[in-house]
Amino acid sequence: MLEGIERVSPSDIERRSFEIISQMLGDRRFPPMHDNIIKRVIHTTADFEFADILSISAGAVESGMDALRAGSNVVSDTKMVWSGINKRVLGRYGGEAVCYMDDAAIASDAAARDVTRASLCMDRAAEDSRNAVYAIGNAPTALIRLCELISEGRAKPLLVVGVPVGFVNVVESKQLLKNAGVPYIISEGRKGGSNVAAAIINAILYMG
Amino acid sequence: MLEGIERVSPSDIERRSFEIISQMLGDRRFPPMHDNIIKRVIHTTADFEFADILSISAGAVESGMDALRAGSNVVSDTKMVWSGINKRVLGRYGGEAVCYMDDAAIASDAAARDVTRASLCMDRAAEDSRNAVYAIGNAPTALIRLCELISEGRAKPLLVVGVPVGFVNVVESKQLLKNAGVPYIISEGRKGGSNVAAAIINAILYMG
Repeated sequence: MLEGIERVSPSDIERRSFEIISQMLGDRRFPPMHDNIIKRVIHTTADFEFADILSISAGAVESGMDALRAGSNVVSDTKMVWSGINKRVLGRYGGEAVCYMDDAAIASDAAARDVTRASLCMDRAAEDSRNAVYAIGNAPTALIRLCELISEGRAKPLLVVGVPVGFVNVVESKQLLKNAGVPYIISEGRKGGSNVAAAIINAILYMG
Repeated sequence: MLEGIERVSPSDIERRSFEIISQMLGDRRFPPMHDNIIKRVIHTTADFEFADILSISAGAVESGMDALRAGSNVVSDTKMVWSGINKRVLGRYGGEAVCYMDDAAIASDAAARDVTRASLCMDRAAEDSRNAVYAIGNAPTALIRLCELISEGRAKPLLVVGVPVGFVNVVESKQLLKNAGVPYIISEGRKGGSNVAAAIINAILYMG
């Protein structure tokens, strides 16, 4: 039954995958600091369009690396992003992955105010710490709220990975982030996702 | 700053998203039981290629619905799939989302045997219950091992969502599943993901 299956040691699967991705990208070259991020996103999606749509502000990767090495927390908008982040490596630097989506007070407050839980999670994160790394993989409402908090001076992220996915205010939320004056990594257009957000954070962790 | 942002109530965001997806799909029509699955996967990825690559065996959705309504557990290969499954709705029917990736015994056993943790999680799940719904969103090694367990008669899943993503044995693992003689939903080719696996399970839960 296992005809056609190649026996690959677990520790080699990722290396082999990156070799295949590099081959498939052919002559394309990326800035050295972007290369691993782009390839890890392709690794997690098998979607080569990300080679074209990831947009990284000048110095954003460096800012994220410095922040994570200094023990910054990573705030996410979903438990899926939280699950995907390599918390062992993050914790080695002293940082934690933080997500407030299961917070009961936030859930009831969101219902009362007819806003999303994800947006209120950003308020809570900004109260905890003005500086953090943010990984927004799903909810444009979270990214919009974070941009408001930045413009009000209540948050000053060291990096925002802004890759919400979808059809309502997604493109607009990324445009807001590009104008927010903080280091960013976004996926242009509608694509993105919690898996993409986690992959970008992990790529930066593994560069450290 | 919020110019261009449309104010949409949280409860309307998903409905609006599905309307936009349906508009963008134009004249395309899918079998009624497949329609919600395809659209929810597009909703979670913004990747319309999934309209072409999702392959659903005859009666698979019905088998999954019956299983979940009867309280079947959903076994996943990653914590990200686990995080993405709507456990509130699943629990209403009596089922649980199950993932053994954090099990310390499995981790040490996998290291000793030079196999992936994900593949050993399938052995463990089959020991727990011969019948379950499986959601494999990341590891082809898990899907390959599950197909072995099926061929040995040790597992007889009521539905396998087989959407691992990537470059090593991914396409081959899906081919194995198609020949395994159990109800399946796969994504043809390299694409897939933990987000896709969770979206498919949720689509079926919401039909229930």
